[in-house]
Amino acid sequence: MPSSLIRGKYILTAAGDAGQITTLSDAAVYQEDGLIVAVGPYDELKARYSPDTELGGPSYSIIPGLVNSHHHGRGVTTLQMGTCDDCLEVWILAGWGRRPYDHYLMTLYTALNMLESGTTAVMYNHPQTAAATLKEDVDAVLRGFLDAGMRVAFSSYLRNQNRVVYQDDADFLSALPADLADDVRRYLSVGHMSDDDYFAFCDEMRREYHDHSSGKVRVLYSPANAQWNTDEFLLRSKEQATRHQTGIHMHLVESPYQKDYGIRTWGKTPVEHLHDLEFLGPEVSFAHAVWLTERDIELLADSGATVCHNASSNLRLKNGIAPVNPMLAAGVNVAMGTDSTAMNDDDDLLQEMRLVNKLHRQPGLDAPAITAEQVLSMATANAAAPTGFGDQIGRLEPGRRADLLLIRLDALADPYLDADVPPVEVIMGRAKSRDIDTVIVDGEVLISDGQHRRVNKADVARELREQLALPLDPATLATRQMAARLSPYVERFYRSHPPTMANPHYVYNSRT
Amino acid sequence: MPSSLIRGKYILTAAGDAGQITTLSDAAVYQEDGLIVAVGPYDELKARYSPDTELGGPSYSIIPGLVNSHHHGRGVTTLQMGTCDDCLEVWILAGWGRRPYDHYLMTLYTALNMLESGTTAVMYNHPQTAAATLKEDVDAVLRGFLDAGMRVAFSSYLRNQNRVVYQDDADFLSALPADLADDVRRYLSVGHMSDDDYFAFCDEMRREYHDHSSGKVRVLYSPANAQWNTDEFLLRSKEQATRHQTGIHMHLVESPYQKDYGIRTWGKTPVEHLHDLEFLGPEVSFAHAVWLTERDIELLADSGATVCHNASSNLRLKNGIAPVNPMLAAGVNVAMGTDSTAMNDDDDLLQEMRLVNKLHRQPGLDAPAITAEQVLSMATANAAAPTGFGDQIGRLEPGRRADLLLIRLDALADPYLDADVPPVEVIMGRAKSRDIDTVIVDGEVLISDGQHRRVNKADVARELREQLALPLDPATLATRQMAARLSPYVERFYRSHPPTMANPHYVYNSRT
Repeated sequence: MPSSLIRGKYILTAAGDAGQITTLSDAAVYQEDGLIVAVGPYDELKARYSPDTELGGPSYSIIPGLVNSHHHGRGVTTLQMGTCDDCLEVWILAGWGRRPYDHYLMTLYTALNMLESGTTAVMYNHPQTAAATLKEDVDAVLRGFLDAGMRVAFSSYLRNQNRVVYQDDADFLSALPADLADDVRRYLSVGHMSDDDYFAFCDEMRREYHDHSSGKVRVLYSPANAQWNTDEFLLRSKEQATRHQTGIHMHLVESPYQKDYGIRTWGKTPVEHLHDLEFLGPEVSFAHAVWLTERDIELLADSGATVCHNASSNLRLKNGIAPVNPMLAAGVNVAMGTDSTAMNDDDDLLQEMRLVNKLHRQPGLDAPAITAEQVLSMATANAAAPTGFGDQIGRLEPGRRADLLLIRLDALADPYLDADVPPVEVIMGRAKSRDIDTVIVDGEVLISDGQHRRVNKADVARELREQLALPLDPATLATRQMAARLSPYVERFYRSHPPTMANPHYVYNSRT
Repeated sequence: MPSSLIRGKYILTAAGDAGQITTLSDAAVYQEDGLIVAVGPYDELKARYSPDTELGGPSYSIIPGLVNSHHHGRGVTTLQMGTCDDCLEVWILAGWGRRPYDHYLMTLYTALNMLESGTTAVMYNHPQTAAATLKEDVDAVLRGFLDAGMRVAFSSYLRNQNRVVYQDDADFLSALPADLADDVRRYLSVGHMSDDDYFAFCDEMRREYHDHSSGKVRVLYSPANAQWNTDEFLLRSKEQATRHQTGIHMHLVESPYQKDYGIRTWGKTPVEHLHDLEFLGPEVSFAHAVWLTERDIELLADSGATVCHNASSNLRLKNGIAPVNPMLAAGVNVAMGTDSTAMNDDDDLLQEMRLVNKLHRQPGLDAPAITAEQVLSMATANAAAPTGFGDQIGRLEPGRRADLLLIRLDALADPYLDADVPPVEVIMGRAKSRDIDTVIVDGEVLISDGQHRRVNKADVARELREQLALPLDPATLATRQMAARLSPYVERFYRSHPPTMANPHYVYNSRT
């Protein structure tokens, strides 16, 4: 990889824990073999080094590559695949009959979309696909990310209980018509994997990929969620992650029903339950974490765990708004993700950052309001922390990998921009993915002039188009019909367990 | 104007009051002289009429032109002009020292931006600029909109009390250092206009523009807000609007401080106060209306008044989230606007529609969630209602004006789109302004292939760039310094009047 000197009018080198940003003016990053050697005044670096190439210039802002801390692939979105937004618990069921797809092509397409909007690393969480082809599927997924040039923290989740609703499978199925119960049992058996098989699979993945020659893969453990896994499974994940010094990525209290399950089952919140199990810790990251009590937030802060905030997904799937301001105030490491269910249905993390920056502005002069600096932290350093690349990416400083973006300033400042507006406010307020000129990972230019340089995206799209145009197979059609037949029973279950929603962290309007 | 037959794979002709959408497949709109003559199956219309031109085709969706129901111009945004987002009451003050600009160029630029994202009609509310040049300024504004080809419901607001904080000006100024109070008094005198002068100005505007030959202008009255105008001014606006059969457009309970002012001053909410004054009615539209009680919502619904919802502005300026779901349930006519403070700082109403569609999805299976159909209504028929063009635009049906958009379906459906996803969900979930191919107002193609056809935008931007690059005049600098000096006093005032915010309509998270 050639060395390069990458120049910007501004370089936002790092977003600190307290949200402060270090901004350099007329500065440059000098990298060799993908490693940042120096960051400083352009003139100084220009005099000191002899790069193979020089990139950027005084019309760009440079920021660290963005890190999407919660993602399930799906470059062809669930909406495109036919599932309109709905309440999470019903929406999941609609996904049972989703059209099958080529994991390699889909992942490559997803990765290209993410790169275009500035995401250079992703925490990818593989959904529970057929056990028989799991290894083959995830090999294809990782090949997709690596061919695109992205960095990926990989995990594959397993649900080992309560797979239809938040209740024991046998209990729930016993109340269904016998033929429907049989069909559901058959469907669940396809994805079934024993705990031993799951951990053996993780071992294999870790040996094969964790120290992959690209240096771009980490392998993590993934219980699916507190209500979807036995305590035994959770503790075994914790023990394995500790032994192999890697992380755990999982969902948590995404919906009010999940919190309610905890109260009903353990007499305490899921966070309290995980705390009592001694499961919490800095190696654990939780996607969503919307329904957190004040005490939950304290426990998470004390443990050093990460919360991956997926603002659009939480709105789209009727799960609410995570209490990000209280979490930040308490010192929780809050990261950002899209959950493959972003604002514009396109995995654009830059757009998602803007939404987060607007969404968490509580009414009133002195009420908490997230800052642009904090949002940039959430999408860079904070999101890097739980990936296993925490000390390698997320900031632009010597010794870290050269993952960064060049954002064109011209459109943001046209026809005028007051010189007093801080660069981070300009980017957070106005930058769009179309303003991202260059995307660099490990010193390699993956996108320049807004165009992919490694992969021909049109070819990928054409192949996907051809494959997805084929008639739907009878087995998927049958699953779709089964899911539609099952749906009213699932809805009835949740209607009979209405969750308590009271005393909000945020008051955005008032009935009285 | 040549007649045209405009063809689409889908035409979303009208969004009904209950949010239902009429969608035609392989259909067309036939227009003559800007008037829609027929809407129906393409083959039938093709056989029946002999249009001068044929537009569109089977790769487009057609929807009514969007109507932005609350807007203050500012194509060069407040952020670009140097004012970062803040709590409304403080943010307004920062605007006092804003760089002066050419009203014609600024409006033309604003209009071109809006057209690009599909807005064909706007409820423009002129801020209280210097009284001496007001007529000249608004002539330039209207020339800007008309040159761009947009439809405009014009009003110019006046604050005739409480112009610094929500307290009598003399009382507030008496507590300031004498020299600062003098400076503020001098500043306020520039914008000062007597009630008589204001209504004479409105008369003049109405005579000159209300029946303008273009057919594209309506003139409305505009008290600024309940706390900013005397009851006498409000009632005189009501009486004049009734006499001249036009509308009233104003702000209302945008912030919790404004509601609190009502409780403190009248012992009731601002809506209750306006109800008791017999001010409410179908000719009145209220921007924001965030801090509405359940009783307020009933009063608005009964009166037939419109609420113009500005979701991004309400978040950006720390005002909360308007209770749109309860308003829709009660039958309030809810429209959409950007308040020139949109999500991406670009007046993109299509993006704003998507935000609204996500934002009002309350947690839980059976909790209210706004539909895509309702959002489309809010940005078309509902927003048209209070403009004075209510029976002419907002729906595609014979007898209405041909204001419509052609949206390219290719990018939305690539590489795949399940055939079962309703067209309205595809547009609401995925369409971006870059997918808007053609924008038509009164049958005239203002944008085709994404390019402006009437005005050279690059020329407008260049002229603005040159003007705005000039050094800031000393008077504006002095005002800026005065506003900075005044700000702590204003903040102290609001801190000493902390508003009550309790019992929210929406519960998005939970502390316990």
